Amino acid sequence: MNQARDEYDVIVLGAGPVGENVADRTRAAGLSTAIVERELVGGECSYWACVPSKALLRPVLARAEARQVPGLRQSVGGALSATDVFAHRDKQVGDWKDDGALPWLESAGIDLVRGHGRLVGPQRVAVTSPDGSGGDERILTARHAVAVCTGTRASLPDLPGIADVHPWTSREATSSSSVPERLIIVGGGVVACEMATAWNGLGSRVTMLVRGSGLLERIEPFAGELVTETLREAGAEVRTGTSVKSLARPGGADGPVTVTLESGERLEADEVLFATGRTPHTDDLGLETVGLESGGWLTVDETCRVRDVPGGWLYGVGDVNHRALLTHQGKYQARIAGAAIGARARGVARLDTDRWGAYATTADEAAVPQVVFTDPEVAAVGLTAEQAEAEGRSIRVVDIDMGQVEGAVLYADGYRGQARMVVDLDRGHPIGVTFVGPGVSELLHSATIAVAGEVPIERLWHAVPSFPTISEVWLRLLEAYRG
Amino acid sequence: MNQARDEYDVIVLGAGPVGENVADRTRAAGLSTAIVERELVGGECSYWACVPSKALLRPVLARAEARQVPGLRQSVGGALSATDVFAHRDKQVGDWKDDGALPWLESAGIDLVRGHGRLVGPQRVAVTSPDGSGGDERILTARHAVAVCTGTRASLPDLPGIADVHPWTSREATSSSSVPERLIIVGGGVVACEMATAWNGLGSRVTMLVRGSGLLERIEPFAGELVTETLREAGAEVRTGTSVKSLARPGGADGPVTVTLESGERLEADEVLFATGRTPHTDDLGLETVGLESGGWLTVDETCRVRDVPGGWLYGVGDVNHRALLTHQGKYQARIAGAAIGARARGVARLDTDRWGAYATTADEAAVPQVVFTDPEVAAVGLTAEQAEAEGRSIRVVDIDMGQVEGAVLYADGYRGQARMVVDLDRGHPIGVTFVGPGVSELLHSATIAVAGEVPIERLWHAVPSFPTISEVWLRLLEAYRG
Repeated sequence: MNQARDEYDVIVLGAGPVGENVADRTRAAGLSTAIVERELVGGECSYWACVPSKALLRPVLARAEARQVPGLRQSVGGALSATDVFAHRDKQVGDWKDDGALPWLESAGIDLVRGHGRLVGPQRVAVTSPDGSGGDERILTARHAVAVCTGTRASLPDLPGIADVHPWTSREATSSSSVPERLIIVGGGVVACEMATAWNGLGSRVTMLVRGSGLLERIEPFAGELVTETLREAGAEVRTGTSVKSLARPGGADGPVTVTLESGERLEADEVLFATGRTPHTDDLGLETVGLESGGWLTVDETCRVRDVPGGWLYGVGDVNHRALLTHQGKYQARIAGAAIGARARGVARLDTDRWGAYATTADEAAVPQVVFTDPEVAAVGLTAEQAEAEGRSIRVVDIDMGQVEGAVLYADGYRGQARMVVDLDRGHPIGVTFVGPGVSELLHSATIAVAGEVPIERLWHAVPSFPTISEVWLRLLEAYRG
Repeated sequence: MNQARDEYDVIVLGAGPVGENVADRTRAAGLSTAIVERELVGGECSYWACVPSKALLRPVLARAEARQVPGLRQSVGGALSATDVFAHRDKQVGDWKDDGALPWLESAGIDLVRGHGRLVGPQRVAVTSPDGSGGDERILTARHAVAVCTGTRASLPDLPGIADVHPWTSREATSSSSVPERLIIVGGGVVACEMATAWNGLGSRVTMLVRGSGLLERIEPFAGELVTETLREAGAEVRTGTSVKSLARPGGADGPVTVTLESGERLEADEVLFATGRTPHTDDLGLETVGLESGGWLTVDETCRVRDVPGGWLYGVGDVNHRALLTHQGKYQARIAGAAIGARARGVARLDTDRWGAYATTADEAAVPQVVFTDPEVAAVGLTAEQAEAEGRSIRVVDIDMGQVEGAVLYADGYRGQARMVVDLDRGHPIGVTFVGPGVSELLHSATIAVAGEVPIERLWHAVPSFPTISEVWLRLLEAYRG
């Protein structure tokens, strides 16, 4: 074993998009960097989340849109070829092999250490072989920083029988290559809604069991309402105010699953998916050896440095810090944290951590964008009206029926959609924008730039949307605001 | 005749989108307003341009996109139902009747005067009946302003035989309800490219005859190149460096048209479309009665007031002023000109006509957006690299292959596209952005806000694009800029 190579400037735990971006930035800053991964380089997002889910969803959404296009709709009435969709998905995830991700690591000069990494005291990481044998332990030391980028995993509720039925989580829901005839989905958030859309589109009879009063409760209310409406029209059942009491597979692994509700009612399906939240991957990282609690979210400052760790060498980047559980937001944090590690290693005395400074993850609080690939698409950035009010801001809210926008009608015959802009009256710029409707996913970035750029309403009047695009909803929003 | 009603605060000539918006703003300012229209309320855009062309194009583009979606592509291999496409187009243009546009005029309190309006001296407009009999002339006087919003019409080159062959212009190309078996298109600009895309998609064998060296020459070069490539793959012929010498229909109106090229070569087709530029609709407006030249473009200031007319009562808004020949840009001018007319009528001493001021059409020079609905879509705002260099600006240009953006690949298998950002190094913000690729039309407004909002590069880093959308091209552009 080459002892010299076991000392690095930076050690990154987890080679998902977040870890990769931290390493990319620390290498760009001239720091030697090792990245420790016990599964696949590329992480959850590339193999069991965003990428495969979008690969499953795009055909469903493209078909839904084509059905709203005169002259084309007749040809797309039938079923999708699930075989082709799965084959495409498999290609997009590299058949769950990470060979394709390795050349980039090498070209960036990042050392990949395969295995399970855990802290064994300050600035020290022990890596054990991925086979779990515990043998072949290697100790790495970090001169400047350790960045924890291990993300989250699906959390399952503690229900009688849940282990026996082998429920789907987001992993199985994005990687399955067979279409269950009947699929029960527990949950009403983004994963639940996207997977309901995908599997319903691929031919499953979907039943959603939602504890709350509607879908997508963290987004403006009309988003969940429109998605519910379309899911129901597409044949899915959406049951709100419903809790699961227990589960069983009375016929064994090959038989159907029985879901018993709190009401006593029993439902039967072929598979059941739990999309009921995420747990941080921090329970087996040795956090207790540096004075932190194991299994919790990491509390970080605006540079993603973990608070309350003497010496300031520990960073928590991406989902583990619970600031914004989204791949793109984790990558954003990674760019900033990686740059901060680099600057501090160079001895830069004071980093610009002011609001919107180069070393402040300001967007995590002010401008988190999210696209939900449902039918219709949901795209939102910044604060909802409710959130802004809860913060005590003085706001004005304007709503527009997107079905009145000519570019939308020309995009999809019978277009249904809704837009909302929340303007901070003291600041004079939008602080939250939500679009719901076909084809809005690429429209969102206009709102993200307006919110993060704090572009005043007066200036937005000069940003002319092209006719006839859906983007003309901006003009309607501004007119309604003026009106 | 009620003489009192013939005096208005404002008279608008032309009831297209531009005239309608001027009138809307002057009415909102409390000014009595008449709008004079000799054809249809709604104008060229609603009946013979943007609206019908988009109605014809959307099915073609939606099919092209669906063909790039695994699981769906098999079902969309066949022909579009042209009958359905035409029926939809006819519905979108209200069957070329303007009944649908009248209630809005009435509710806004705008008086519609049908007929041909022309100036007969300062602040006086004579309106003759639309039948052209010349009888029943009515004289209107404008206390404050006359706004000329008469737009443009297709200009035909003076070629032997051109009148005899009854060539298509943009009007026939957007309103035809039969698919010519062979269609020759003369021109290589936006109308030519869009109509080539539409009619090729609807089944015509299209030949484009382009005088210049490529298509879409006012946009970044890669736009025309990618559109040419796709048109050729779709079976169209694109011939550059080619000029037409003469035309004939030897077999009469029902026979084919023969196009003779400068080279002597003869081509035969069923219809020939000339998309060779626009002429201002100013030749029959009585401009000579107020000291202006008839038939020319109107030279206006930043509020769209015509220069060199004593008293400052004459405005030229939209295409007629030649600032930016696009519906949305004309509507933008209309909002500003209408507000300026209102403010001046109220006696406001000094209007804010500074750069980006409320009464300055600054975007006309700095941030004109345009979407070309071809396959692939072309979307551009602001200056091209060549234009910026010609202005002597210090710039940095970054290019990105959009086929490397994960969100693009997940949108369309085998995605082909290109993006360019032009940054003004002295100002520190983008001054031009061009996207070419499937699904970029709604992405453009992000660039329009960045350019018009003059959002600094440092702040754009905080505008996080959602993963996995095509919008992540922004991240690649910023990375390339930093690199």
